[in-house]
Amino acid sequence: MTGRLSVIGIGPGDPELLTLKAVRVIKESSVLCVPKGREEGSSLALSIVEKAVDLDGKEIIEAHFPMRKTMGQGADHTDLSLDDKWNQIAETILTQLKKGKDVAFLTLGDPTIYSTFFYLYDKLLELRPDLSIQIIPGVSSINASAARANISLGLGNERIAILPANYLDNLKTTLEMFDTVVLMKVNKVLDEIIKLLGEMDLIGSAVCVSRAGMEDEIIYRDITKIKQEGLNYFSVVIVRK
Amino acid sequence: MTGRLSVIGIGPGDPELLTLKAVRVIKESSVLCVPKGREEGSSLALSIVEKAVDLDGKEIIEAHFPMRKTMGQGADHTDLSLDDKWNQIAETILTQLKKGKDVAFLTLGDPTIYSTFFYLYDKLLELRPDLSIQIIPGVSSINASAARANISLGLGNERIAILPANYLDNLKTTLEMFDTVVLMKVNKVLDEIIKLLGEMDLIGSAVCVSRAGMEDEIIYRDITKIKQEGLNYFSVVIVRK
Repeated sequence: MTGRLSVIGIGPGDPELLTLKAVRVIKESSVLCVPKGREEGSSLALSIVEKAVDLDGKEIIEAHFPMRKTMGQGADHTDLSLDDKWNQIAETILTQLKKGKDVAFLTLGDPTIYSTFFYLYDKLLELRPDLSIQIIPGVSSINASAARANISLGLGNERIAILPANYLDNLKTTLEMFDTVVLMKVNKVLDEIIKLLGEMDLIGSAVCVSRAGMEDEIIYRDITKIKQEGLNYFSVVIVRK
Repeated sequence: MTGRLSVIGIGPGDPELLTLKAVRVIKESSVLCVPKGREEGSSLALSIVEKAVDLDGKEIIEAHFPMRKTMGQGADHTDLSLDDKWNQIAETILTQLKKGKDVAFLTLGDPTIYSTFFYLYDKLLELRPDLSIQIIPGVSSINASAARANISLGLGNERIAILPANYLDNLKTTLEMFDTVVLMKVNKVLDEIIKLLGEMDLIGSAVCVSRAGMEDEIIYRDITKIKQEGLNYFSVVIVRK
């Protein structure tokens, strides 16, 4: 196996927020692999990158990522078709690497923050325990959202919590214990969040950033004015006490 | 006032982790302002940036940042000398902007993650409520540390907590409630952390990354082998259950 696999965080959406390293490694890779999901369409990742790097002549692999977790703890091992899909993507990448081609796997934001790549990572290592994978960090959408709203996520001894907002258990306790709480992907649970923040008198401490750094970015300083059904998947609520 | 003030996250230390935007705005700015603290020496920020951008002819302002918080909640308003220092830095920057010069304030990692810039931000807005400040996000040392250790910080519905480790209260509760706990600046409290993680049977789930992305980076897979006194200020422990 001679090709190199790199997992690249391409940042939140603004092509200028790609790092120099991301640009260099994408240029050096002959194959680009992009996840093709319902919400994170491959067209989005590619449309960001092609504004900063010439993609002419690159081979593009669009991998349809299963939405459910199929490996590790809590996995549904009985669903073989999902496991088959992961296997298929892993095999496709390994085939390219065996041909000596460098493969760049593109991921929005930063690879270590809720990127589905890490499901694939386990599968790749299962098939090739000696595979070396280079992970290139990127600007996370969380940091970009805070920057766009001109707020700090934490200072001095302050504590920060990051929660996928579809996991509302203990949200009240978390809001009590932490100085800053970042709620990811709030589009489906915004009404419940507004209700709880209202009860805790925290509406004035919340800001919502939708599609930070993208062309259609919106910053909502009053989250009660947002219509839940109009809110995008890439929306973050930051509660800063 | 015609000059523009930009606050730029320069990433964790690897000059290639600067974003295209950071490079462009630094090139366009005639004045660079760098914090000069005990731990975050200005020489460090400048030495990273000068590997990616030609700094010849730039005016460099080294601002000695007070270590204690002097504004906002919990501030020590009786210590006038600290407040004077913040005022002095703010005035220095405003003077440059008034001359029409673009000023770039450089901060390691990402500006919204524990950057002392936000103390200055309040002071600047106090003096000039209409001042527009551009915050350019960067790769946070947290994301870079996780990438270097090849671990995800969160997947699916997992919850992430980020704690400055000198704030050990409730650490046990936080470790119980969250899937991933990131402990910042652990160099002074490592022994206490190892003791608690040992009691909770979490030693095997912890990894320590010191100076992620810098030339002298070290990754410790067994944190009990680390000598606390040898550990650097830029050290992060990630506990991933």
